[in-house]
Amino acid sequence: MNYAKSRIWTELDFEKDGKQVGYLHLPHSVDRSGAGTIAIPCAVFRNGAGPSSLLMAGNHGDEYEGQVALTRLIRDLEADDIKGRIIVVPAINLPAAMAGTRISPIDDRNLNRCFPGNPNGTPTEQIAYYVEAVLAPMCESWLDLHSGGASMAFMPYAQIILSRDEALNKRALAALEAFGAPLSLIQGFSDEPNMSNSAAVRNNVIHFGTEAGGSGTVNPDGVKLAYDGTLRSLVHLGHLSPRNRRIPIPPAPKKVRWIEIASRDYYVYAPQAGLFEPMVKLGDTVKKGQLYGHVHFVDDPMRLPAEVKFKASGLVVCMRHPGRCERGDCLGHLATDIKR
Amino acid sequence: MNYAKSRIWTELDFEKDGKQVGYLHLPHSVDRSGAGTIAIPCAVFRNGAGPSSLLMAGNHGDEYEGQVALTRLIRDLEADDIKGRIIVVPAINLPAAMAGTRISPIDDRNLNRCFPGNPNGTPTEQIAYYVEAVLAPMCESWLDLHSGGASMAFMPYAQIILSRDEALNKRALAALEAFGAPLSLIQGFSDEPNMSNSAAVRNNVIHFGTEAGGSGTVNPDGVKLAYDGTLRSLVHLGHLSPRNRRIPIPPAPKKVRWIEIASRDYYVYAPQAGLFEPMVKLGDTVKKGQLYGHVHFVDDPMRLPAEVKFKASGLVVCMRHPGRCERGDCLGHLATDIKR
Amino acid sequence: MNYAKSRIWTELDFEKDGKQVGYLHLPHSVDRSGAGTIAIPCAVFRNGAGPSSLLMAGNHGDEYEGQVALTRLIRDLEADDIKGRIIVVPAINLPAAMAGTRISPIDDRNLNRCFPGNPNGTPTEQIAYYVEAVLAPMCESWLDLHSGGASMAFMPYAQIILSRDEALNKRALAALEAFGAPLSLIQGFSDEPNMSNSAAVRNNVIHFGTEAGGSGTVNPDGVKLAYDGTLRSLVHLGHLSPRNRRIPIPPAPKKVRWIEIASRDYYVYAPQAGLFEPMVKLGDTVKKGQLYGHVHFVDDPMRLPAEVKFKASGLVVCMRHPGRCERGDCLGHLATDIKR
Amino acid sequence: MNYAKSRIWTELDFEKDGKQVGYLHLPHSVDRSGAGTIAIPCAVFRNGAGPSSLLMAGNHGDEYEGQVALTRLIRDLEADDIKGRIIVVPAINLPAAMAGTRISPIDDRNLNRCFPGNPNGTPTEQIAYYVEAVLAPMCESWLDLHSGGASMAFMPYAQIILSRDEALNKRALAALEAFGAPLSLIQGFSDEPNMSNSAAVRNNVIHFGTEAGGSGTVNPDGVKLAYDGTLRSLVHLGHLSPRNRRIPIPPAPKKVRWIEIASRDYYVYAPQAGLFEPMVKLGDTVKKGQLYGHVHFVDDPMRLPAEVKFKASGLVVCMRHPGRCERGDCLGHLATDIKR
Amino acid sequence: MNYAKSRIWTELDFEKDGKQVGYLHLPHSVDRSGAGTIAIPCAVFRNGAGPSSLLMAGNHGDEYEGQVALTRLIRDLEADDIKGRIIVVPAINLPAAMAGTRISPIDDRNLNRCFPGNPNGTPTEQIAYYVEAVLAPMCESWLDLHSGGASMAFMPYAQIILSRDEALNKRALAALEAFGAPLSLIQGFSDEPNMSNSAAVRNNVIHFGTEAGGSGTVNPDGVKLAYDGTLRSLVHLGHLSPRNRRIPIPPAPKKVRWIEIASRDYYVYAPQAGLFEPMVKLGDTVKKGQLYGHVHFVDDPMRLPAEVKFKASGLVVCMRHPGRCERGDCLGHLATDIKR
Amino acid sequence: MNYAKSRIWTELDFEKDGKQVGYLHLPHSVDRSGAGTIAIPCAVFRNGAGPSSLLMAGNHGDEYEGQVALTRLIRDLEADDIKGRIIVVPAINLPAAMAGTRISPIDDRNLNRCFPGNPNGTPTEQIAYYVEAVLAPMCESWLDLHSGGASMAFMPYAQIILSRDEALNKRALAALEAFGAPLSLIQGFSDEPNMSNSAAVRNNVIHFGTEAGGSGTVNPDGVKLAYDGTLRSLVHLGHLSPRNRRIPIPPAPKKVRWIEIASRDYYVYAPQAGLFEPMVKLGDTVKKGQLYGHVHFVDDPMRLPAEVKFKASGLVVCMRHPGRCERGDCLGHLATDIKR
Repeated sequence: MNYAKSRIWTELDFEKDGKQVGYLHLPHSVDRSGAGTIAIPCAVFRNGAGPSSLLMAGNHGDEYEGQVALTRLIRDLEADDIKGRIIVVPAINLPAAMAGTRISPIDDRNLNRCFPGNPNGTPTEQIAYYVEAVLAPMCESWLDLHSGGASMAFMPYAQIILSRDEALNKRALAALEAFGAPLSLIQGFSDEPNMSNSAAVRNNVIHFGTEAGGSGTVNPDGVKLAYDGTLRSLVHLGHLSPRNRRIPIPPAPKKVRWIEIASRDYYVYAPQAGLFEPMVKLGDTVKKGQLYGHVHFVDDPMRLPAEVKFKASGLVVCMRHPGRCERGDCLGHLATDIKR
Repeated sequence: MNYAKSRIWTELDFEKDGKQVGYLHLPHSVDRSGAGTIAIPCAVFRNGAGPSSLLMAGNHGDEYEGQVALTRLIRDLEADDIKGRIIVVPAINLPAAMAGTRISPIDDRNLNRCFPGNPNGTPTEQIAYYVEAVLAPMCESWLDLHSGGASMAFMPYAQIILSRDEALNKRALAALEAFGAPLSLIQGFSDEPNMSNSAAVRNNVIHFGTEAGGSGTVNPDGVKLAYDGTLRSLVHLGHLSPRNRRIPIPPAPKKVRWIEIASRDYYVYAPQAGLFEPMVKLGDTVKKGQLYGHVHFVDDPMRLPAEVKFKASGLVVCMRHPGRCERGDCLGHLATDIKR
Repeated sequence: MNYAKSRIWTELDFEKDGKQVGYLHLPHSVDRSGAGTIAIPCAVFRNGAGPSSLLMAGNHGDEYEGQVALTRLIRDLEADDIKGRIIVVPAINLPAAMAGTRISPIDDRNLNRCFPGNPNGTPTEQIAYYVEAVLAPMCESWLDLHSGGASMAFMPYAQIILSRDEALNKRALAALEAFGAPLSLIQGFSDEPNMSNSAAVRNNVIHFGTEAGGSGTVNPDGVKLAYDGTLRSLVHLGHLSPRNRRIPIPPAPKKVRWIEIASRDYYVYAPQAGLFEPMVKLGDTVKKGQLYGHVHFVDDPMRLPAEVKFKASGLVVCMRHPGRCERGDCLGHLATDIKR
Repeated sequence: MNYAKSRIWTELDFEKDGKQVGYLHLPHSVDRSGAGTIAIPCAVFRNGAGPSSLLMAGNHGDEYEGQVALTRLIRDLEADDIKGRIIVVPAINLPAAMAGTRISPIDDRNLNRCFPGNPNGTPTEQIAYYVEAVLAPMCESWLDLHSGGASMAFMPYAQIILSRDEALNKRALAALEAFGAPLSLIQGFSDEPNMSNSAAVRNNVIHFGTEAGGSGTVNPDGVKLAYDGTLRSLVHLGHLSPRNRRIPIPPAPKKVRWIEIASRDYYVYAPQAGLFEPMVKLGDTVKKGQLYGHVHFVDDPMRLPAEVKFKASGLVVCMRHPGRCERGDCLGHLATDIKR
Repeated sequence: MNYAKSRIWTELDFEKDGKQVGYLHLPHSVDRSGAGTIAIPCAVFRNGAGPSSLLMAGNHGDEYEGQVALTRLIRDLEADDIKGRIIVVPAINLPAAMAGTRISPIDDRNLNRCFPGNPNGTPTEQIAYYVEAVLAPMCESWLDLHSGGASMAFMPYAQIILSRDEALNKRALAALEAFGAPLSLIQGFSDEPNMSNSAAVRNNVIHFGTEAGGSGTVNPDGVKLAYDGTLRSLVHLGHLSPRNRRIPIPPAPKKVRWIEIASRDYYVYAPQAGLFEPMVKLGDTVKKGQLYGHVHFVDDPMRLPAEVKFKASGLVVCMRHPGRCERGDCLGHLATDIKR
Repeated sequence: MNYAKSRIWTELDFEKDGKQVGYLHLPHSVDRSGAGTIAIPCAVFRNGAGPSSLLMAGNHGDEYEGQVALTRLIRDLEADDIKGRIIVVPAINLPAAMAGTRISPIDDRNLNRCFPGNPNGTPTEQIAYYVEAVLAPMCESWLDLHSGGASMAFMPYAQIILSRDEALNKRALAALEAFGAPLSLIQGFSDEPNMSNSAAVRNNVIHFGTEAGGSGTVNPDGVKLAYDGTLRSLVHLGHLSPRNRRIPIPPAPKKVRWIEIASRDYYVYAPQAGLFEPMVKLGDTVKKGQLYGHVHFVDDPMRLPAEVKFKASGLVVCMRHPGRCERGDCLGHLATDIKR
């Protein structure tokens, strides 16, 4: 695709060898600073010819595990360790990351519903545009580290979302295998045009990532999965040697459980506003029709709690974290095993 | 003590036999309703002469386990099951409970720092006043069910806070033992005058409660502890027969671990604003000087994370839940075993 | 027209016979619920072949009369009562309806200035898109029940807005006559593309509705007009038999007064910010140049009130309700009789 | 009583003969103006020896009828017209009056729950203090013009609230009779210490006023009642001659209906949050147990509306205006006739 | 270009001879006024055939000098004084001007990043559209008076931004010379499509203006520059005679200093959030590498202040005004002399 | 006076020799951190016996000059440099200082109207209490560095406020002379009990300070005055030797101009809301009746600007900075020379 010019500028030189750590500058004219910018941290590692990869976290600001993993990677990695080019953006939606919110506090936008973005749009739209029109076209691979955020707790897993492009799917699946998460999810293809995976497809770039924990806290196991999986991916993608000395590559798990979310029926939504008390735990296997929990009405004690039941059978991989819910809030979802 | 008249009124008759479920009406004149009220749910169970007890949750609106347990108790219990009088208020700071916040969204006040309250003050001050000046004087015992709320996750435990009144302490300790939490904490006495336990002391009422989970979710184990412990307490206090048929009394745990928080040194505070990644888990036993975790700076990746260390040795009973922190935020605290 | 796919999904089956009451689910990813939805109530009545009609209220959230009328209709009506299909959405802009505001509190958008909407836009834009691209194309008729909302009080009337399509106009006028409001307004054609009537024209659907009261209260006479007129319309459109037994059709008024708003000169705007005191009442007939009222300056008592005069003669059918006004706020408008 | 010094200052000289229109200056140090003030309009009319009266409106900022009447009176009246001293404050809680809100937008306080105020408190508390400690002690009579405000619509009436001081009651009743409202209410005595009537009693000043309309609009009939009644009161209090030429005194109504609110049972509160549709109108006479209206749930159409019934018989003198309500909002109240 | 119809209407007749002062009415449907408008002040002076010019201030609401100058001009000028047509809009983004903010408080948009605007967009987008599609096409010249606003203080200067159209550049430069500012800046051409100068180019209209002071105050010297320069421009553009009697034309300065901003390197951005203390003053000449100032950390006193250095040499023409800054905020910029 | 215990705790030991830099911890229980604190920076320098002094800035958060000066002093000073004890708090109202606001963003309180504070009050009230009840009683001298803040620009000066205690006044005047500001103001005594100077009097502590610039920026000249004056004061108070080597003491100015503000007549307030354009500059000498400036109405261009005149003659030492004003905002004040 052919993109118009982004307003975001940087003193980083993506073509220069070495390790550079600096900022992407998003012009943001506000009352507080008429000619001001939002400074989004970015690192570029380059060592001669080779593949180019984009590593990104903070697509949603309240998903912390990948942010910690990539911030650490920037300090740990040197240009000499690698081949080709690695671009690392640990907190791509910086205003949301600093506020600890999914949605940008500046424009109330969800970055992962903004692609392909808009070079003249709101800050979040401009970030989406820069990622899609500037960063992605420089790369062949895109690792996008997500987590559950404040509203959801996940069994940590890695995942890809299939596209209509079989060749791309095959390459992405290989990267997912290399990432090496004990639980790995393959999403059926999506025509959703506004998410980062579609931006990758539009640029013929593979896209893979994680749901590395969540509930609004920093899950150390999720950080470890994100960090270790990233290193294993960098080996797979040809950036790191599996035998490099400075940075030992952690071994992949012996066994991977492969799962999918087969349809919307595996999701559960709140039928009423109230206080949700679950009856199952993350990792439980449940049956269709089984009681998931109750929505309680503490302002009206004699009103019977609303029952919430599963509409399908499967593994509980995601549960709502906050106690209070509004009607229509997602209470979690299941996944089912697939054969590979 | 002799208190002025509260503005809160109710159609409930605290002297009448039977089960009544209704509201405490707090006049609250606002733009939306000049002569309006806040309707706080309340149940009164009375069956002849006998002891009087106050059961309360929702002192902090984001502490949900006790709210669910007491809402359930109101439905489960009938007047015939008991002796004496039980007053149950499952969401005493209703505006906070409905908003899912610790602090009241109406007046930005923390109910548990408002006692003895003010009959002409803000809504939260008026609630404190009503509890201290109307409800507490009718009772001999006060069960106040807390949890960690949105900012803290606790190993669930029950607790009392000692006062200068040894006789009261002795009675409270007996109630705590009857409550039967596997982990039970005895706080050294506090001169803090604005918390509910001091309100109890001023009324010669015993005060005991829980920290039943937290992190802003509804912890089913915490709900069970709160519900079961409440029933065991009602037996101890003489309201329920241990052999009543309709409501079986759950057996207490075989073994109780008794703990205390010996000083301020057992608390840990954030030395910087950033993203806190812990290195230990709830229930771990740690040593003085041990690394608790790091505060990461995702907006400045080359800045070294700040190290956070424990200043004492003990059991990790409380950890901060949200990933982001401000300097001075509490990151958790330890407890140590006591002999009894 | 050919529309892209809406993100809004529903468990309702618009092709199935019977009465279904459920929700339209608008995905809305927010801090509180990353995979959450807004659940907009909707009912579908279908009984074999026949016409299809859309009945809608809550286009503006603070216009209540139609919301009450359609909510009641959903409970009153059974599939056996009708022929064809009736889709009833009593609170289409649900977030605004629940907040009691004209504008959505989520995105600050006025639904009736959002058509044809945007499948990837803000919630209000997505609602507009769903109505225009999914609901309207299934129907031949669209009843859109408005009222004055919080800022305006209307003499209750029914109305159509003429389009450039004479055949459509003729059908709409017939429906307006069948609705049977004692006061009925025919608006000259509008090229405004963003209102619901233009969405109807783009789908070759007739569009008619009400201004059924207002001032931010629930006007019982307006509810009755909306409810009765809806039933009469359903007879006219071939859904209900005039002789059905379960739901008696209220008789239309003997005499209808037909009016129009001939130009912008019939509107009155506040010349200053202040406190508007009117000198006339709804239903008065006024002359060009007549004093409408004064804008008072209570912060500057010796400043003479600003006079507000009518620029045309006519019937006062709409008056501003709130006392305080800003310069440019609409203070009301007139209508004039037309011959038919 | 003996009061500390108020911080509010004024260039007005309350002891000087003549007509002065100026401001009461309330120091209010804010980010926008560190040494700034709130300028509350005030007029002083003095003509030699004689009685002193305080005329006040805007106690609640969204009660407009009295604000218009007193602003007009300031322009209409000259010092030569009167005897003694009249202090007129048309918008005493100016920040609320300019915002059109009951409650001050500055400190979220209701002035009429702030007496006796606090000389070092929030702006609203300082206003209360100034009225109680500076203005009231200068006067023998205090006319406080209220209305329904945004949340309530009243049948316009005048009223007094009886105190424990029989001599004061007798004088107040005479003033109420002179005010000459066709509907006049006598409230049984109140021990509420924070309202303006108690401030008057503490100063041995009579206190009377109106409920002159409401619903958040400027009711011209209410303005007329307030203006005419004020003039009749000024005659009764000895300020104006009944035969003065410049300002003709409007005649009092032939017949006055005397009413009271006998107990809390005459009030009606919302049992649920929703959309309230009344079945009766202002001025209707209703029976105990009669249906007042329904609370509708437009987000849950099949849920039956909640019925609201009267708990007593009487005249509907006050009804809630806004359609949406929260549980506990006042939906209106009745009054009953008294013999005199 | 060919533009769609704007929704903004006006009672002003741009083709009529004489002086008219009125409003541009922007329909803005809000909760407070469903059929309301924003009334933007505008004056039209016309006297027979001749050139047409647009004079505008308040593009940013917190840039006051031009607002004062043009408000004064509207009062000072009569139609007889001029030839042709002058359209004067002293506060084009009225909501921002009344709030004293750069950005519109209504839609959080920066008018000068909204061109070419949107006839169906937010209020600020609609204003941009009206200026570009209605006002600019009627004119040959456009004077756009800016200042530093609240966040920046400028040495007052006048400026043009070069376009790719050399003929237009030549005419604009002549107008800039005629404006007669002692310090005059010529910006290298910009492809930024969303600023007012691009809107002018799209309409073949010359565009020139000022940076007349700033720091959020009204700078009297800046007002004088704006007012005097406007008069000199009106002579240059053929509207005013240099020998007219009623309005004497102030003489231009003897000597003009011509400057440019040669690249992004002349800008300085905050490297950290904190309190910025500058070491230089407006008008100083500085060297590349020279210390500009420090960012202090008052919450962490032992942390060394961050040094801020210039990356180029030049004249300090713009400095940040507010003490506190966020990382990425613009701290000012330099300019360098050019030969002409 | 005898004070109750403050809740604020610190790890600093005020009795220990050496230099300690740490925090005052104010417990602040909020949704974000239920057991959290606000960490206010504080340094303690102690070297044996000797006088004790409190140096404080950030009483108002937007007054920056003293904050910079004291932060620098903490880094520059070592315990060996001094005798006795110096307590330095560079940002006493930390939440306001970090927000850059006069008023605390947490509780909307002005610290300098909160003394003597409240140990159980809002955060600002607790800070006031700690300063008055803990810090002040440890000292004999209190330097409180103020500035104009965002709303006012001052000619930098130092000042004392006289009390009824002549001995204290004499000592304060000596300290003011030692401070050595070229412009020095002596305020007539004030009975205002809620300001820091009254807190000092209640503790028999001398109190002196600055108005070191303002307008919301960091004025380098004001920083220098604050820093140099503080050093000279430390010599005068016996902490520093005038001949110490490490920290050279800057010489005092040759000549001091002594001024006072004789009455409220020297203050000017805005008569209308609008845009204030001054006609004079800081440092001008003006006459009673002279025009100070105009309030312009840019939304109503033909309305004549309101004239603002001085009510007294004197030196313009303070001017409002922001362009827009509300009625009652302070526009500045004068001072007059006094003989000494």
